[in-house]
Amino acid sequence: MPTVTFKSHDREVEVPGGTVISDAARMVGIEVSMPCGGQGRCGRCAVVVEQGEVQRRSVARLSPEAISEGYALACQTTVQGDLVVTIPPQEKIERRLPASQRVAEVAVPLAYDPSTDQTLRKYFVQIEPPSLSDNTDDLARVRRALQAQHGAEVPRLKVELPVLRKLANVLREGQWKVTLVLETETWVSPDGPPRVVDVKTGDTTSSLWGAAVDIGTTSNVVHLVDLLTGRVVDSASDYNHQIARGEDIISRIIFASKPQGLGELQGLVLETINGLLRGLAERNGIATDEIYKMTVAGNSTMIHLFLGLVPDSIRLEPYITTTNQPPPVTASEAGVEINPLATVDCLPGVGSYVGADISAGVYSSDMCSLQDVSLFIDIGTNGEIVLGDCDWLISCACSAGPAFEGAGVQDGMRATAGAIEEVWIDDSTFEATYRVIGDEKPRGICGSGLISLLAEMFISGVMDKRGNLNLGLDTPRVREGDHGPEYVVAWSSESAAGREITINKVDVDNLLRAKAAVYAGFSVLARSVGIDLSSVGRILIAGAFGQYLDVENAVQIGLLPDMPRDRFKFLGNTSILGAYMALLSKEGRKGISELAQRMTYLELSADNTFHDEWMSALFFPHTNINDFPSVLELLEQNRHL
Amino acid sequence: MPTVTFKSHDREVEVPGGTVISDAARMVGIEVSMPCGGQGRCGRCAVVVEQGEVQRRSVARLSPEAISEGYALACQTTVQGDLVVTIPPQEKIERRLPASQRVAEVAVPLAYDPSTDQTLRKYFVQIEPPSLSDNTDDLARVRRALQAQHGAEVPRLKVELPVLRKLANVLREGQWKVTLVLETETWVSPDGPPRVVDVKTGDTTSSLWGAAVDIGTTSNVVHLVDLLTGRVVDSASDYNHQIARGEDIISRIIFASKPQGLGELQGLVLETINGLLRGLAERNGIATDEIYKMTVAGNSTMIHLFLGLVPDSIRLEPYITTTNQPPPVTASEAGVEINPLATVDCLPGVGSYVGADISAGVYSSDMCSLQDVSLFIDIGTNGEIVLGDCDWLISCACSAGPAFEGAGVQDGMRATAGAIEEVWIDDSTFEATYRVIGDEKPRGICGSGLISLLAEMFISGVMDKRGNLNLGLDTPRVREGDHGPEYVVAWSSESAAGREITINKVDVDNLLRAKAAVYAGFSVLARSVGIDLSSVGRILIAGAFGQYLDVENAVQIGLLPDMPRDRFKFLGNTSILGAYMALLSKEGRKGISELAQRMTYLELSADNTFHDEWMSALFFPHTNINDFPSVLELLEQNRHL
Repeated sequence: MPTVTFKSHDREVEVPGGTVISDAARMVGIEVSMPCGGQGRCGRCAVVVEQGEVQRRSVARLSPEAISEGYALACQTTVQGDLVVTIPPQEKIERRLPASQRVAEVAVPLAYDPSTDQTLRKYFVQIEPPSLSDNTDDLARVRRALQAQHGAEVPRLKVELPVLRKLANVLREGQWKVTLVLETETWVSPDGPPRVVDVKTGDTTSSLWGAAVDIGTTSNVVHLVDLLTGRVVDSASDYNHQIARGEDIISRIIFASKPQGLGELQGLVLETINGLLRGLAERNGIATDEIYKMTVAGNSTMIHLFLGLVPDSIRLEPYITTTNQPPPVTASEAGVEINPLATVDCLPGVGSYVGADISAGVYSSDMCSLQDVSLFIDIGTNGEIVLGDCDWLISCACSAGPAFEGAGVQDGMRATAGAIEEVWIDDSTFEATYRVIGDEKPRGICGSGLISLLAEMFISGVMDKRGNLNLGLDTPRVREGDHGPEYVVAWSSESAAGREITINKVDVDNLLRAKAAVYAGFSVLARSVGIDLSSVGRILIAGAFGQYLDVENAVQIGLLPDMPRDRFKFLGNTSILGAYMALLSKEGRKGISELAQRMTYLELSADNTFHDEWMSALFFPHTNINDFPSVLELLEQNRHL
Repeated sequence: MPTVTFKSHDREVEVPGGTVISDAARMVGIEVSMPCGGQGRCGRCAVVVEQGEVQRRSVARLSPEAISEGYALACQTTVQGDLVVTIPPQEKIERRLPASQRVAEVAVPLAYDPSTDQTLRKYFVQIEPPSLSDNTDDLARVRRALQAQHGAEVPRLKVELPVLRKLANVLREGQWKVTLVLETETWVSPDGPPRVVDVKTGDTTSSLWGAAVDIGTTSNVVHLVDLLTGRVVDSASDYNHQIARGEDIISRIIFASKPQGLGELQGLVLETINGLLRGLAERNGIATDEIYKMTVAGNSTMIHLFLGLVPDSIRLEPYITTTNQPPPVTASEAGVEINPLATVDCLPGVGSYVGADISAGVYSSDMCSLQDVSLFIDIGTNGEIVLGDCDWLISCACSAGPAFEGAGVQDGMRATAGAIEEVWIDDSTFEATYRVIGDEKPRGICGSGLISLLAEMFISGVMDKRGNLNLGLDTPRVREGDHGPEYVVAWSSESAAGREITINKVDVDNLLRAKAAVYAGFSVLARSVGIDLSSVGRILIAGAFGQYLDVENAVQIGLLPDMPRDRFKFLGNTSILGAYMALLSKEGRKGISELAQRMTYLELSADNTFHDEWMSALFFPHTNINDFPSVLELLEQNRHL
């Protein structure tokens, strides 16, 4: 009989060939975590097979990389010979980490050269002190020295009041040895004179800081970037403090239309970002006013609120922004607490519902330089979708509504501590197991939890393809509730609030409409350019929500198309990645502008095929079940079709 | 016997030929005002001879224009035949009017054409409202309409946050018919994109307002200018509120170096200017934010304090400004309460003590386009002097000290109500008569009063050419006082303070040093370019103080050179005139910049001939009395030489 050695626990056991690893483990007293009850759906029982032969019945939720590293699902993998197995600590499997603790690992572009790529540059100059025989004014002396010592073209050096106000003192305190921070070029006036952003005593050319920012409706992220090396030195994130005034874009726009509402929302997002900047500066031992440039990505509403632009017309037909290409502003104008004269550059968007987060994200994904077609998706309140290749790009936004963000669902909540983020329903008992963020008692269900719940309800037969709950099942969990039929996910004894956590028919319908809107978006986009969804080379899933999205579940409910799993790529927060690329290089900044300008925007509400596509998608997974072969196979296995 | 008809009083009288007109008037009960006691020195008794022949014994204080209009001094003009005489109301002769009531009568340049001269322009545009099939953003729609309807080159139209923040509402409230205020060109970036200064609902192209400002150390003046016609529509002035923190430039600079001092002084001048702007706007039925451009002239210290630049180094050797050519700023940056995005353009100066008031003033005087040499003088705390013609310009500043502004003299005061502004001393009795601003009881003596007093003291023999008072005279007015010999101008019974108003030897010495510094300035400048003062074609006297300066008196004490009186021209406030010219036209603005750049600055403290010239000028009128032939003649008449 083969021997299985559990290296991590220093135990071994002899088992018959064909035994599943989880059983082998249990034989020597090792409990492998299996929230889904060993059905191969949750992926929590992943172990590493270091040596030996195994057979994997399922690799659900394992990435190709993980599999090549030896990961296998303990409940779905059988012993075929002597094995050495490591059971990794549960933390290694947990993908979700509290956002504020995550430090992005962003690769610096290989060829980064600040002297050519960067618009910011520091110059150390030594200036001749004035005398009665040479009483040239301070500023002219600076110009003269700069020209003599750096040969820069500075006859029309642009100097603004804040610099002039400190110039006399800085020159004298620095004994006529100072460092000038110049912005040699901005994308709005590439031929304009270089601008003096700051002047400091002594030689400070050994550091140069910038910040890249993503303003999400829910979360804001800031990267602190060393502009000399290009490295993301640190990163921080926080909930957008605007959340207290509305969870989603539409409620924020409505709040902004109240007296002082816009100013209040602007203040709240500034409070968030300034807090993050202060924290980063402190943690890295720099002053915030040493940060001399900031790029900002975000959806069009977030950019409007950040800049204090009136967002009303974004909400109302025909859905118009004030501008999709905001001009660069100074930090002091914007209210951002970095160097007051630092440029704050909000990246360009495409339209009201395809904002700078998408143009930056698509740019960072590199799909616009590839020959074959990619599908880029960012699912949140709105599902933004971009289809294209190196020659063309078309985008649309489907008003998915806030259901996937936990709003509009009775027990929905944001993905914070206490939210059920994954659910498993036993095929025979219909009992639920779940995982809660922070390992607390549950308070509600977040977006990824809802997708997981819907998939499990559908696959286990708790509900049918129309979303009707099966009241005939032998379980107290499916019952008639105040809002029609409902399924009890957690009993009151288990929950933090002391009440049951349920999902009812109204919730299911809301979610069904939302997922149908996204899928209809794919279909309309693909049809509008005459290609078939199945010919798409890769599906790029962007956004924080995308990071926690389970592809299997999403395909099972028909939110994502059923395609070979290796075509799905999770890109994480592409919005901040694009902002980082724009911060680093003129090329990057220009690239995003050009991309935003050439991206076509398809207004779905003006498209006459959208409604039909949406109606067809109002089923789990879809009217055309044949478009979802893997789901069909699973259902056939479970004999629920 | 000839008949004299006093038309204004409807009386007539027969008098023997050779009778002075003032005697003829007295014969029919008309008292002509003669503060100088009929000595032909004060010019207050001017009458208009409408018909008939007279002989003028003196035309002191009458301009050639006045003489050609028939003006004659009643006390110095004899009847030669039948006359018709009008005695004008005293107000017509009074040159001094309270500053706040004076409305500048500024001629609009004949060729003013706003479409070519002006950098500001309004465009009315009618914009296609957006629809689902044309969801171009607001700003891009504005650009498109502007281009289609006005053919303007606007691909890179510069738009700033405040305009973007209101754009959505203005477009919709205006039902897509709006007026854009564009600044099509600024002197710093003539090739840059036009900048949107404002956007307003409806068609507001029938008005376009600007303001020209002169920030004097003592007085601030604002012209409200209709930029469509070029006309100065209204004007207002006020004391610079900084006066409460120091009367002169040096004490202001010292105050600025205290903690919060600079901010306080900046706040005070802004308070002054904003108050004037508000008053002008209200009086003319416009809103302050309809004022879209402002040009500012003033000495370098005033410009530094206005912009919040550190002025310390202006005071300390080697006397350096932060910049002589401040960049244009927006009104909101500067703290000026006109349209927040209006350009506030501080005109360029030459150096620490030859500021924008002088470059603007010289430009407005047109001396730089003439073939023969002019001497431009602005006497205040500092006497700024410019010598030159169309080919060259050289300038200097002589630290006259604040004596001529009433400071550093025991009973000196500013030229406000209660200040003695003119004095006459009887040659035989040594009794003083004087004129007081506001016709009140006197409280002190202002600059023009001091010059008048010194001249009268010298000519009447109360003091000698060294400024020593003659204690041997038979009058109680010359006496030994606490600070040495003194002359009593007003007894305590006459004065408002109930104490005597006197001038003592210390005061006289201060004034002597001040006037010598100015005259030495002329001499050094003339010598430095190898010309003789007497060959100067015209002497241009600028500044508010110059307006009240009496040439005869100033020549008598040797403050001004003794030249034919028709070479003296009083230009009034040339600083505001230059600011107005820069406001009106690009040419004007450019002209002042070019002038400031080509004007040579001679640092007197670094010139080795200055001290000798100054020593020679420490006499009334000068060591070389032969350079003052008219004074010599007067002294010989009075037998005091």
